Amino acid sequence: VSDTGDTTVQWLRDVEALRAFPQRYSRAIDARDIDAVGELFDPAGVVEGARGTSAVPEYLEGLRSMPRSFASSMHVLGDPLVDFVPGADTAHMDTYALVYQLDRVDDPGGDMLLGMRYLDDLVRVDGQWRIHHRKAVMLWTR
Amino acid sequence: VSDTGDTTVQWLRDVEALRAFPQRYSRAIDARDIDAVGELFDPAGVVEGARGTSAVPEYLEGLRSMPRSFASSMHVLGDPLVDFVPGADTAHMDTYALVYQLDRVDDPGGDMLLGMRYLDDLVRVDGQWRIHHRKAVMLWTR
Amino acid sequence: VSDTGDTTVQWLRDVEALRAFPQRYSRAIDARDIDAVGELFDPAGVVEGARGTSAVPEYLEGLRSMPRSFASSMHVLGDPLVDFVPGADTAHMDTYALVYQLDRVDDPGGDMLLGMRYLDDLVRVDGQWRIHHRKAVMLWTR
Repeated sequence: VSDTGDTTVQWLRDVEALRAFPQRYSRAIDARDIDAVGELFDPAGVVEGARGTSAVPEYLEGLRSMPRSFASSMHVLGDPLVDFVPGADTAHMDTYALVYQLDRVDDPGGDMLLGMRYLDDLVRVDGQWRIHHRKAVMLWTR
Repeated sequence: VSDTGDTTVQWLRDVEALRAFPQRYSRAIDARDIDAVGELFDPAGVVEGARGTSAVPEYLEGLRSMPRSFASSMHVLGDPLVDFVPGADTAHMDTYALVYQLDRVDDPGGDMLLGMRYLDDLVRVDGQWRIHHRKAVMLWTR
Repeated sequence: VSDTGDTTVQWLRDVEALRAFPQRYSRAIDARDIDAVGELFDPAGVVEGARGTSAVPEYLEGLRSMPRSFASSMHVLGDPLVDFVPGADTAHMDTYALVYQLDRVDDPGGDMLLGMRYLDDLVRVDGQWRIHHRKAVMLWTR
Protein backbone atom coordinates (compact mmCIF):
# COMPACT_ATOMS: atom_id res chain seq x y z
CA VAL A 1 0.00 0.00 0.00
CA SER A 2 1.23 3.47 -0.71
CA ASP A 3 2.26 5.78 2.12
CA THR A 4 -0.60 7.97 1.03
CA GLY A 5 -3.08 5.18 1.67
CA ASP A 6 -1.74 4.44 5.14
CA THR A 7 -1.66 8.15 5.99
CA THR A 8 -5.27 8.55 4.90
CA VAL A 9 -6.41 5.55 6.96
CA GLN A 10 -4.62 6.92 10.02
CA TRP A 11 -6.19 10.34 9.36
CA LEU A 12 -9.65 8.79 9.13
CA ARG A 13 -9.09 6.90 12.39
CA ASP A 14 -7.97 10.09 14.12
CA VAL A 15 -11.00 11.97 12.79
CA GLU A 16 -13.24 9.31 14.36
CA ALA A 17 -11.43 9.64 17.69
CA LEU A 18 -11.74 13.42 17.52
CA ARG A 19 -15.41 13.31 16.52
CA ALA A 20 -16.22 11.35 19.68
CA PHE A 21 -14.92 14.14 21.94
CA PRO A 22 -17.96 16.42 21.87
CA GLN A 23 -20.31 13.50 22.54
CA ARG A 24 -18.09 12.14 25.32
CA TYR A 25 -18.07 15.63 26.83
CA SER A 26 -21.85 15.91 26.73
CA ARG A 27 -22.39 12.51 28.40
CA ALA A 28 -19.82 13.33 31.10
CA ILE A 29 -21.01 16.85 31.89
CA ASP A 30 -24.70 15.89 31.88
CA ALA A 31 -23.92 13.05 34.31
CA ARG A 32 -21.83 15.50 36.37
CA ASP A 33 -19.04 12.93 36.11
CA ILE A 34 -16.15 15.35 36.48
CA ASP A 35 -13.54 12.57 36.37
CA ALA A 36 -14.86 11.65 32.91
CA VAL A 37 -14.74 15.33 31.87
CA GLY A 38 -11.14 15.44 33.11
CA GLU A 39 -10.13 12.53 30.87
CA LEU A 40 -10.94 14.69 27.84
CA PHE A 41 -8.60 17.53 28.79
CA ASP A 42 -4.84 17.96 28.82
CA PRO A 43 -3.94 18.72 32.47
CA ALA A 44 -1.60 21.40 31.11
CA GLY A 45 -4.45 22.98 29.15
CA VAL A 46 -6.69 26.01 29.51
CA VAL A 47 -10.45 26.59 29.36
CA GLU A 48 -11.92 29.96 28.44
CA GLY A 49 -15.56 30.30 29.32
CA ALA A 50 -18.30 32.47 30.74
CA ARG A 51 -16.58 32.48 34.14
CA GLY A 52 -13.23 33.59 32.72
CA THR A 53 -10.06 31.69 31.84
CA SER A 54 -8.78 28.83 33.99
CA ALA A 55 -6.08 26.20 33.91
CA VAL A 56 -7.67 22.78 33.44
CA PRO A 57 -7.20 21.64 37.08
CA GLU A 58 -8.91 24.83 38.31
CA TYR A 59 -11.68 24.41 35.72
CA LEU A 60 -12.34 20.86 36.93
CA GLU A 61 -12.22 21.90 40.57
CA GLY A 62 -14.72 24.65 39.74
CA LEU A 63 -17.07 22.09 38.20
CA ARG A 64 -16.78 19.93 41.33
CA SER A 65 -17.39 22.69 43.84
CA MET A 66 -19.88 24.85 41.96
CA PRO A 67 -23.34 24.84 43.54
CA ARG A 68 -25.97 23.42 41.20
CA SER A 69 -28.15 26.06 39.65
CA PHE A 70 -30.25 23.56 37.70
CA ALA A 71 -31.43 20.05 38.53
CA SER A 72 -30.23 18.61 35.21
CA SER A 73 -28.75 19.49 31.84
CA MET A 74 -28.68 18.11 28.31
CA HIS A 75 -25.92 19.18 25.92
CA VAL A 76 -27.15 18.49 22.37
CA LEU A 77 -24.12 18.89 20.13
CA GLY A 78 -23.93 19.09 16.37
CA ASP A 79 -21.33 17.29 14.32
CA PRO A 80 -17.98 19.02 14.87
CA LEU A 81 -16.18 20.77 12.04
CA VAL A 82 -12.78 19.02 12.28
CA ASP A 83 -9.65 20.76 11.00
CA PHE A 84 -6.84 18.23 11.08
CA VAL A 85 -3.88 17.79 8.71
CA PRO A 86 -2.84 14.14 8.12
CA GLY A 87 0.06 13.20 10.36
CA ALA A 88 -0.28 16.21 12.66
CA ASP A 89 -0.34 15.98 16.46
CA THR A 90 -2.69 18.93 16.80
CA ALA A 91 -6.26 19.41 15.61
CA HIS A 92 -8.96 22.05 15.83
CA MET A 93 -12.68 21.42 16.29
CA ASP A 94 -15.59 23.80 16.11
CA THR A 95 -18.81 22.41 17.61
CA TYR A 96 -22.24 23.99 17.87
CA ALA A 97 -24.35 23.10 20.90
CA LEU A 98 -27.81 23.58 22.31
CA VAL A 99 -27.51 23.36 26.07
CA TYR A 100 -30.73 22.73 27.97
CA GLN A 101 -30.42 23.69 31.64
CA LEU A 102 -33.55 22.30 33.27
CA ASP A 103 -35.43 23.03 36.48
CA ARG A 104 -33.67 25.88 38.18
CA VAL A 105 -33.01 24.79 41.75
CA ASP A 106 -34.69 27.85 43.26
CA ASP A 107 -37.50 27.77 40.65
CA PRO A 108 -38.40 24.21 39.55
CA GLY A 109 -40.25 25.25 36.41
CA GLY A 110 -37.45 27.53 35.29
CA ASP A 111 -35.33 26.36 32.35
CA MET A 112 -32.60 28.05 30.35
CA LEU A 113 -31.55 27.31 26.78
CA LEU A 114 -28.07 28.35 25.66
CA GLY A 115 -26.65 28.49 22.15
CA MET A 116 -22.98 27.58 22.58
CA ARG A 117 -19.96 27.15 20.34
CA TYR A 118 -16.96 25.14 21.51
CA LEU A 119 -13.68 26.03 19.80
CA ASP A 120 -11.20 23.33 20.81
CA ASP A 121 -7.50 22.89 20.12
CA LEU A 122 -6.53 19.31 20.72
CA VAL A 123 -3.09 17.73 21.08
CA ARG A 124 -1.98 14.14 20.85
CA VAL A 125 -0.15 13.23 24.08
CA ASP A 126 1.32 9.69 24.36
CA GLY A 127 -0.95 8.59 21.52
CA GLN A 128 -4.12 9.98 23.12
CA TRP A 129 -6.00 13.09 22.02
CA ARG A 130 -6.73 15.69 24.69
CA ILE A 131 -8.31 19.15 24.61
CA HIS A 132 -5.45 21.56 25.22
CA HIS A 133 -7.40 24.77 24.80
CA ARG A 134 -11.16 25.22 24.87
CA LYS A 135 -12.92 28.46 24.15
CA ALA A 136 -16.59 28.06 25.08
CA VAL A 137 -18.53 30.92 23.48
CA MET A 138 -22.04 31.59 24.72
CA LEU A 139 -23.81 32.89 21.61
CA TRP A 140 -27.18 33.50 23.23
CA THR A 141 -29.45 32.47 26.07
CA ARG A 142 -33.21 32.27 26.40
CA VAL B 1 -1.19 -4.03 3.16
CA SER B 2 -1.01 -5.15 6.75
CA ASP B 3 -3.92 -6.92 8.41
CA THR B 4 -4.09 -3.91 10.70
CA GLY B 5 -4.71 -1.62 7.75
CA ASP B 6 -7.48 -3.77 6.29
CA THR B 7 -9.08 -4.19 9.70
CA THR B 8 -9.07 -0.43 10.24
CA VAL B 9 -10.62 0.25 6.83
CA GLN B 10 -13.35 -2.29 7.54
CA TRP B 11 -13.88 -0.74 10.98
CA LEU B 12 -14.23 2.71 9.43
CA ARG B 13 -16.72 1.42 6.89
CA ASP B 14 -18.77 -0.21 9.63
CA VAL B 15 -18.72 2.99 11.68
CA GLU B 16 -20.16 4.86 8.70
CA ALA B 17 -22.91 2.24 8.32
CA LEU B 18 -23.67 2.46 12.04
CA ARG B 19 -23.65 6.27 12.06
CA ALA B 20 -26.39 6.30 9.43
CA PHE B 21 -28.80 4.37 11.67
CA PRO B 22 -30.03 7.24 13.84
CA GLN B 23 -30.59 9.45 10.79
CA ARG B 24 -32.36 6.64 8.90
CA TYR B 25 -34.54 6.11 11.98
CA SER B 26 -35.48 9.78 12.18
CA ARG B 27 -36.44 10.00 8.48
CA ALA B 28 -38.51 6.79 8.74
CA ILE B 29 -40.33 7.62 11.96
CA ASP B 30 -41.04 11.23 10.95
CA ALA B 31 -42.51 9.96 7.67
CA ARG B 32 -44.46 7.32 9.64
CA ASP B 33 -42.92 4.79 7.27
CA ILE B 34 -43.07 1.81 9.62
CA ASP B 35 -41.68 -0.58 6.98
CA ALA B 36 -38.57 1.60 6.81
CA VAL B 37 -38.38 1.62 10.63
CA GLY B 38 -38.63 -2.17 10.54
CA GLU B 39 -35.62 -2.47 8.23
CA LEU B 40 -33.44 -1.00 10.99
CA PHE B 41 -34.38 -3.59 13.60
CA ASP B 42 -33.54 -7.26 14.12
CA PRO B 43 -36.91 -9.08 14.07
CA ALA B 44 -35.62 -11.09 17.04
CA GLY B 45 -34.84 -7.89 18.96
CA VAL B 46 -36.43 -5.92 21.77
CA VAL B 47 -37.39 -2.27 22.27
CA GLU B 48 -37.65 -0.72 25.73
CA GLY B 49 -39.47 2.57 25.78
CA ALA B 50 -41.99 4.78 27.49
CA ARG B 51 -44.75 2.26 26.79
CA GLY B 52 -42.82 -0.68 28.28
CA THR B 53 -40.74 -3.43 26.70
CA SER B 54 -41.81 -5.13 23.47
CA ALA B 55 -40.46 -7.63 21.00
CA VAL B 56 -39.67 -5.86 17.71
CA PRO B 57 -42.72 -7.21 15.82
CA GLU B 58 -45.03 -5.97 18.60
CA TYR B 59 -43.20 -2.64 18.71
CA LEU B 60 -43.71 -2.18 14.97
CA GLU B 61 -47.34 -3.25 15.19
CA GLY B 62 -47.81 -0.73 17.99
CA LEU B 63 -46.40 2.03 15.77
CA ARG B 64 -48.80 1.03 12.99
CA SER B 65 -51.91 0.89 15.11
CA MET B 66 -51.25 3.70 17.58
CA PRO B 67 -53.62 6.64 17.13
CA ARG B 68 -51.79 9.81 16.20
CA SER B 69 -51.48 12.23 19.08
CA PHE B 70 -49.63 14.84 17.02
CA ALA B 71 -49.95 15.89 13.39
CA SER B 72 -46.20 15.63 12.75
CA SER B 73 -42.85 15.02 14.38
CA MET B 74 -39.19 15.91 13.83
CA HIS B 75 -36.47 13.82 15.46
CA VAL B 76 -33.30 15.94 15.53
CA LEU B 77 -30.50 13.56 16.50
CA GLY B 78 -26.96 14.35 17.52
CA ASP B 79 -23.97 12.41 16.30
CA PRO B 80 -24.01 8.96 17.95
CA LEU B 81 -21.27 7.89 20.31
CA VAL B 82 -20.24 4.60 18.64
CA ASP B 83 -18.62 1.83 20.68
CA PHE B 84 -17.42 -0.81 18.27
CA VAL B 85 -14.34 -3.05 18.43
CA PRO B 86 -12.70 -3.78 15.03
CA GLY B 87 -13.87 -7.12 13.69
CA ALA B 88 -16.78 -7.49 16.10
CA ASP B 89 -20.32 -8.37 15.02
CA THR B 90 -21.89 -6.30 17.78
CA ALA B 91 -21.80 -2.56 18.43
CA HIS B 92 -23.28 -0.10 20.89
CA MET B 93 -24.52 3.38 20.09
CA ASP B 94 -25.62 6.18 22.37
CA THR B 95 -27.55 8.95 20.62
CA TYR B 96 -29.03 12.15 22.01
CA ALA B 97 -32.21 13.45 20.42
CA LEU B 98 -34.53 16.42 20.49
CA VAL B 99 -37.96 15.17 19.46
CA TYR B 100 -40.42 17.82 18.35
CA GLN B 101 -44.01 16.55 18.49
CA LEU B 102 -46.02 19.20 16.69
CA ASP B 103 -49.69 20.18 16.65
CA ARG B 104 -51.46 17.94 19.10
CA VAL B 105 -54.42 16.44 17.27
CA ASP B 106 -56.94 17.58 19.87
CA ASP B 107 -55.19 20.96 20.31
CA PRO B 108 -53.61 22.22 17.06
CA GLY B 109 -51.36 24.78 18.72
CA GLY B 110 -50.06 22.28 21.26
CA ASP B 111 -46.52 21.01 20.81
CA MET B 112 -44.31 18.83 22.96
CA LEU B 113 -40.52 18.75 23.06
CA LEU B 114 -38.80 15.65 24.41
CA GLY B 115 -35.17 15.17 25.36
CA MET B 116 -34.43 11.55 24.44
CA ARG B 117 -31.46 9.22 24.60
CA TYR B 118 -31.35 6.08 22.44
CA LEU B 119 -29.09 3.31 23.77
CA ASP B 120 -28.82 0.76 20.98
CA ASP B 121 -27.12 -2.63 20.80
CA LEU B 122 -26.64 -3.62 17.18
CA VAL B 123 -25.76 -6.95 15.64
CA ARG B 124 -24.47 -7.85 12.21
CA VAL B 125 -26.83 -10.40 10.65
CA ASP B 126 -25.95 -11.76 7.17
CA GLY B 127 -23.60 -8.82 6.68
CA GLN B 128 -26.23 -6.21 7.63
CA TRP B 129 -26.37 -4.23 10.84
CA ARG B 130 -29.64 -4.30 12.77
CA ILE B 131 -30.74 -2.88 16.13
CA HIS B 132 -31.11 -5.88 18.41
CA HIS B 133 -31.91 -3.99 21.59
CA ARG B 134 -33.04 -0.38 21.93
CA LYS B 135 -33.54 1.38 25.21
CA ALA B 136 -35.25 4.71 24.52
CA VAL B 137 -34.88 6.91 27.60
CA MET B 138 -37.09 9.96 27.91
CA LEU B 139 -34.89 12.40 29.82
CA TRP B 140 -37.41 15.23 29.98
CA THR B 141 -40.44 16.74 28.28
CA ARG B 142 -41.68 20.28 27.95
CA VAL C 1 -3.57 -3.45 -1.50
CA SER C 2 -6.66 -4.53 -3.36
CA ASP C 3 -8.56 -2.08 -5.51
CA THR C 4 -11.43 -2.61 -3.13
CA GLY C 5 -9.34 -1.33 -0.24
CA ASP C 6 -8.21 1.78 -2.11
CA THR C 7 -11.74 2.47 -3.31
CA THR C 8 -13.09 2.20 0.23
CA VAL C 9 -10.43 4.54 1.61
CA GLN C 10 -11.23 7.08 -1.10
CA TRP C 11 -14.93 6.68 -0.36
CA LEU C 12 -14.35 7.28 3.35
CA ARG C 13 -12.29 10.39 2.59
CA ASP C 14 -15.04 11.72 0.33
CA VAL C 15 -17.67 11.05 3.00
CA GLU C 16 -15.64 13.15 5.44
CA ALA C 17 -15.41 15.97 2.90
CA LEU C 18 -19.16 15.76 2.29
CA ARG C 19 -20.01 15.60 5.99
CA ALA C 20 -18.24 18.91 6.54
CA PHE C 21 -20.55 20.74 4.10
CA PRO C 22 -23.54 21.27 6.40
CA GLN C 23 -21.30 22.53 9.20
CA ARG C 24 -19.36 24.81 6.84
CA TYR C 25 -22.68 26.16 5.61
CA SER C 26 -23.93 26.88 9.12
CA ARG C 27 -20.74 28.74 10.12
CA ALA C 28 -20.82 30.77 6.89
CA ILE C 29 -24.50 31.70 6.93
CA ASP C 30 -24.52 32.53 10.66
CA ALA C 31 -21.52 34.81 10.11
CA ARG C 32 -23.29 36.29 7.06
CA ASP C 33 -20.12 35.50 5.15
CA ILE C 34 -21.70 35.15 1.73
CA ASP C 35 -18.34 34.56 0.02
CA ALA C 36 -17.88 31.51 2.25
CA VAL C 37 -21.42 30.35 1.44
CA GLY C 38 -20.57 30.75 -2.25
CA GLU C 39 -17.55 28.44 -1.95
CA LEU C 40 -19.92 25.59 -1.09
CA PHE C 41 -22.03 25.91 -4.21
CA ASP C 42 -21.51 25.10 -7.86
CA PRO C 43 -21.92 28.44 -9.72
CA ALA C 44 -23.95 26.51 -12.31
CA GLY C 45 -26.26 25.15 -9.59
CA VAL C 46 -29.74 25.91 -8.34
CA VAL C 47 -31.27 26.58 -4.89
CA GLU C 48 -34.92 25.89 -4.17
CA GLY C 49 -36.16 27.53 -1.01
CA ALA C 50 -38.92 29.44 0.72
CA ARG C 51 -38.41 32.38 -1.67
CA GLY C 52 -38.65 30.23 -4.80
CA THR C 53 -36.04 28.73 -7.11
CA SER C 54 -32.90 30.64 -8.06
CA ALA C 55 -29.68 30.04 -9.92
CA VAL C 56 -26.79 30.06 -7.45
CA PRO C 57 -25.47 33.54 -8.42
CA GLU C 58 -28.95 35.02 -7.87
CA TYR C 59 -29.32 33.11 -4.60
CA LEU C 60 -26.02 34.54 -3.35
CA GLU C 61 -26.94 38.03 -4.53
CA GLY C 62 -30.24 37.69 -2.69
CA LEU C 63 -28.40 36.81 0.51
CA ARG C 64 -26.16 39.85 0.09
CA SER C 65 -28.93 42.33 -0.60
CA MET C 66 -31.69 40.97 1.63
CA PRO C 67 -32.52 43.29 4.54
CA ARG C 68 -31.89 41.63 7.88
CA SER C 69 -35.05 40.50 9.61
CA PHE C 70 -33.21 39.14 12.66
CA ALA C 71 -30.10 40.34 14.47
CA SER C 72 -28.50 36.89 14.44
CA SER C 73 -29.05 33.26 13.56
CA MET C 74 -27.77 29.84 14.62
CA HIS C 75 -28.15 26.87 12.29
CA VAL C 76 -27.87 23.72 14.42
CA LEU C 77 -27.54 20.85 11.95
CA GLY C 78 -27.75 17.13 12.59
CA ASP C 79 -25.40 14.62 11.03
CA PRO C 80 -26.23 14.35 7.31
CA LEU C 81 -27.51 11.15 5.80
CA VAL C 82 -24.96 10.69 2.99
CA ASP C 83 -25.87 8.68 -0.11
CA PHE C 84 -22.70 8.23 -2.12
CA VAL C 85 -21.57 5.30 -4.27
CA PRO C 86 -17.79 4.60 -4.20
CA GLY C 87 -16.09 6.19 -7.18
CA ALA C 88 -19.02 8.41 -8.14
CA ASP C 89 -18.73 12.12 -8.86
CA THR C 90 -22.17 12.87 -7.47
CA ALA C 91 -23.60 12.49 -3.98
CA HIS C 92 -26.83 13.21 -2.15
CA MET C 93 -27.15 14.49 1.38
CA ASP C 94 -30.20 14.88 3.59
CA THR C 95 -29.65 17.09 6.63
CA TYR C 96 -32.06 18.06 9.40
CA ALA C 97 -31.65 21.50 10.95
CA LEU C 98 -32.96 23.61 13.76
CA VAL C 99 -32.60 27.24 12.70
CA TYR C 100 -32.76 29.81 15.46
CA GLN C 101 -33.54 33.28 14.13
CA LEU C 102 -32.94 35.60 17.06
CA ASP C 103 -34.05 39.12 17.93
CA ARG C 104 -36.31 40.29 15.17
CA VAL C 105 -35.01 43.67 14.05
CA ASP C 106 -38.36 45.40 14.54
CA ASP C 107 -39.07 43.47 17.78
CA PRO C 108 -35.88 42.72 19.74
CA GLY C 109 -37.42 40.02 21.93
CA GLY C 110 -38.95 38.23 18.96
CA ASP C 111 -37.35 34.96 17.90
CA MET C 112 -38.32 32.35 15.36
CA LEU C 113 -37.41 28.67 15.34
CA LEU C 114 -37.56 26.77 12.05
CA GLY C 115 -37.43 23.03 11.46
CA MET C 116 -35.59 22.66 8.14
CA ARG C 117 -34.45 19.85 5.90
CA TYR C 118 -31.72 20.40 3.34
CA LEU C 119 -31.77 17.98 0.39
CA ASP C 120 -28.50 18.51 -1.47
CA ASP C 121 -27.17 17.04 -4.69
CA LEU C 122 -23.42 17.52 -4.82
CA VAL C 123 -21.02 17.17 -7.72
CA ARG C 124 -17.27 16.83 -7.82
CA VAL C 125 -15.83 19.60 -10.01
CA ASP C 126 -12.04 19.67 -10.56
CA GLY C 127 -11.62 17.43 -7.52
CA GLN C 128 -13.75 19.64 -5.25
CA TRP C 129 -17.26 18.90 -4.02
CA ARG C 130 -19.89 21.56 -4.60
CA ILE C 131 -23.65 21.73 -3.98
CA HIS C 132 -25.23 21.62 -7.42
CA HIS C 133 -28.84 21.52 -6.30
CA ARG C 134 -30.24 22.39 -2.89
CA LYS C 135 -33.84 21.98 -1.90
CA ALA C 136 -34.37 23.69 1.45
CA VAL C 137 -37.66 22.48 2.90
CA MET C 138 -39.18 24.43 5.77
CA LEU C 139 -40.96 21.74 7.78
CA TRP C 140 -42.37 24.04 10.44
CA THR C 141 -41.89 27.35 12.21
CA ARG C 142 -42.65 28.51 15.72
